[in-house]
Amino acid sequence: MICVLAGGVGAARMLDGLVRVVAPSEITAIVNVGDDLELHGLHISPDLDTITYTLAGAINPATGWGLVDESWQAMAAVERYGGITWFGLGDRDLGTHLYRTQRRHDGATLSEVTAEITRAWDLDLRLLPVTDDPLRTMVTVPGEGELSFQEYFVQRHHDVAVSAVRFAGADQARPAPGVLDAIVGADVVVVAPSNPIVSIDPVLAVPGVREAVVAARERTVAVSPIVAGAALKGPADRLLRELGHEASVVGVARLYAPIAATLVIDEADADLADAVEAEGLRCVVAPTVMRDPDAAAALARVVLAGAPA
Amino acid sequence: MICVLAGGVGAARMLDGLVRVVAPSEITAIVNVGDDLELHGLHISPDLDTITYTLAGAINPATGWGLVDESWQAMAAVERYGGITWFGLGDRDLGTHLYRTQRRHDGATLSEVTAEITRAWDLDLRLLPVTDDPLRTMVTVPGEGELSFQEYFVQRHHDVAVSAVRFAGADQARPAPGVLDAIVGADVVVVAPSNPIVSIDPVLAVPGVREAVVAARERTVAVSPIVAGAALKGPADRLLRELGHEASVVGVARLYAPIAATLVIDEADADLADAVEAEGLRCVVAPTVMRDPDAAAALARVVLAGAPA
Repeated sequence: MICVLAGGVGAARMLDGLVRVVAPSEITAIVNVGDDLELHGLHISPDLDTITYTLAGAINPATGWGLVDESWQAMAAVERYGGITWFGLGDRDLGTHLYRTQRRHDGATLSEVTAEITRAWDLDLRLLPVTDDPLRTMVTVPGEGELSFQEYFVQRHHDVAVSAVRFAGADQARPAPGVLDAIVGADVVVVAPSNPIVSIDPVLAVPGVREAVVAARERTVAVSPIVAGAALKGPADRLLRELGHEASVVGVARLYAPIAATLVIDEADADLADAVEAEGLRCVVAPTVMRDPDAAAALARVVLAGAPA
Repeated sequence: MICVLAGGVGAARMLDGLVRVVAPSEITAIVNVGDDLELHGLHISPDLDTITYTLAGAINPATGWGLVDESWQAMAAVERYGGITWFGLGDRDLGTHLYRTQRRHDGATLSEVTAEITRAWDLDLRLLPVTDDPLRTMVTVPGEGELSFQEYFVQRHHDVAVSAVRFAGADQARPAPGVLDAIVGADVVVVAPSNPIVSIDPVLAVPGVREAVVAARERTVAVSPIVAGAALKGPADRLLRELGHEASVVGVARLYAPIAATLVIDEADADLADAVEAEGLRCVVAPTVMRDPDAAAALARVVLAGAPA
């Protein structure tokens, strides 16, 4: 069994590789919900949906989020009213949020609804939100105060300095059913190449999750989201620096050393392999840029080989 | 000043006639909200929207509700998930509900949001929900129990017998700002040809509204929604019979005698004019079927002439 700690786009691509090299039914992804938001009265779970749409082959390849061949009639109508349009919701994508929200009103948990949605898309892997309880990543921007993650990420295009990140609700959150079992029972725990600060940290912040991953450290393989000192997508490099870390595979190694025994870094960073190992992790050097599903599958093979037998 | 007590389609057509014969800024419509519903987490106000879309020239003429040239991508996605699709929400129409719901979450009242929406559609008349408080028409169907109005009207196609109707929340509801003033200050109060049981009665059920209309009785003109013993649209005839009334202009006259001094009936019912007057109302006979805006305008002239100078 494989357990993957997952954020959004990078994790979706990693999982799209994994399902090509192991049976999807062997895979559980434990997904960040710190990015979730309530907008227009709807419960929106961007990371869960990005993974679902990617694995269903329905993601918009141009953006990495949302559905391909999407229409935007509802948003155009909201715009006419002067409503909130900075968080784009395509018409078919809206169907997902309408369904999720109604089911939540009916009393279903987020993990129950997620299972229903992935089943409707014929996915055989298991997606688990890390928690069914409210957990929201909050970002402090000096001069602006505290913003929700999407206000920072989408509305400000993550183009503002950040002085702190916290996970509101984390203290009270319980791991969703199956989360701890998936970590404990995994032959390999994979930390996907997601943003360590705002994708992986909120997953680890749910009480019990970090402890379970630490206990599985010897079987845990992380993939660096930093390649040649930069994030392939999003603000991971900038956030690492702003919060006092090094925006390099060595900085990532320091962050992940307590939870992972192995770090996979890109060939571009091969000269830093010794520095990574000096942080106490085994270092595996491989192509990590997932340009297409074949590249993702190749990386998946490397990751699985990186774990001790 | 003209004040119109309004339900959905019939009232929308009546108003579409009135705006052609008096300045729209002279008109206030007090609109039923007993049909409102929460679905997919969204606040949906069908009667307000039907009137808005009709007056904006954007209504779907084939159905009398929803927007013309609408797309249905979101609903198709909900259907894929096995979600609730019996209440059809087109993509552009969804934009209205998304906007309304977000504004309600922001703390705006329904009447505030309604003003914003009608302004966005460039309407010059004033639409007021009868109340900003929760008011829900509930219908008892023997064997099924109590249904919400839309479960009865849309999901069951109003094709089931009804033994009782009540307006949940009416006792606690307060008239929205402007409602009582609009009735008191009106030169003519018009009771639109809407369903007396489930469109007009919930408006009158808000404490203070019936009393205000009774006080304005001499200036109040009702238009019968029953023509030749049948409703032009919807279940008004059937509901009248099932709840012990007569499904005729005479039955309508009995219901409206306490609140209206004048009843406009269709030429098809000319032979019942004396029976109507025997109920204590002046009876005006005129074409009442609003086949197009010109017919609606002609009816509007009759209605305004029906009130004492």
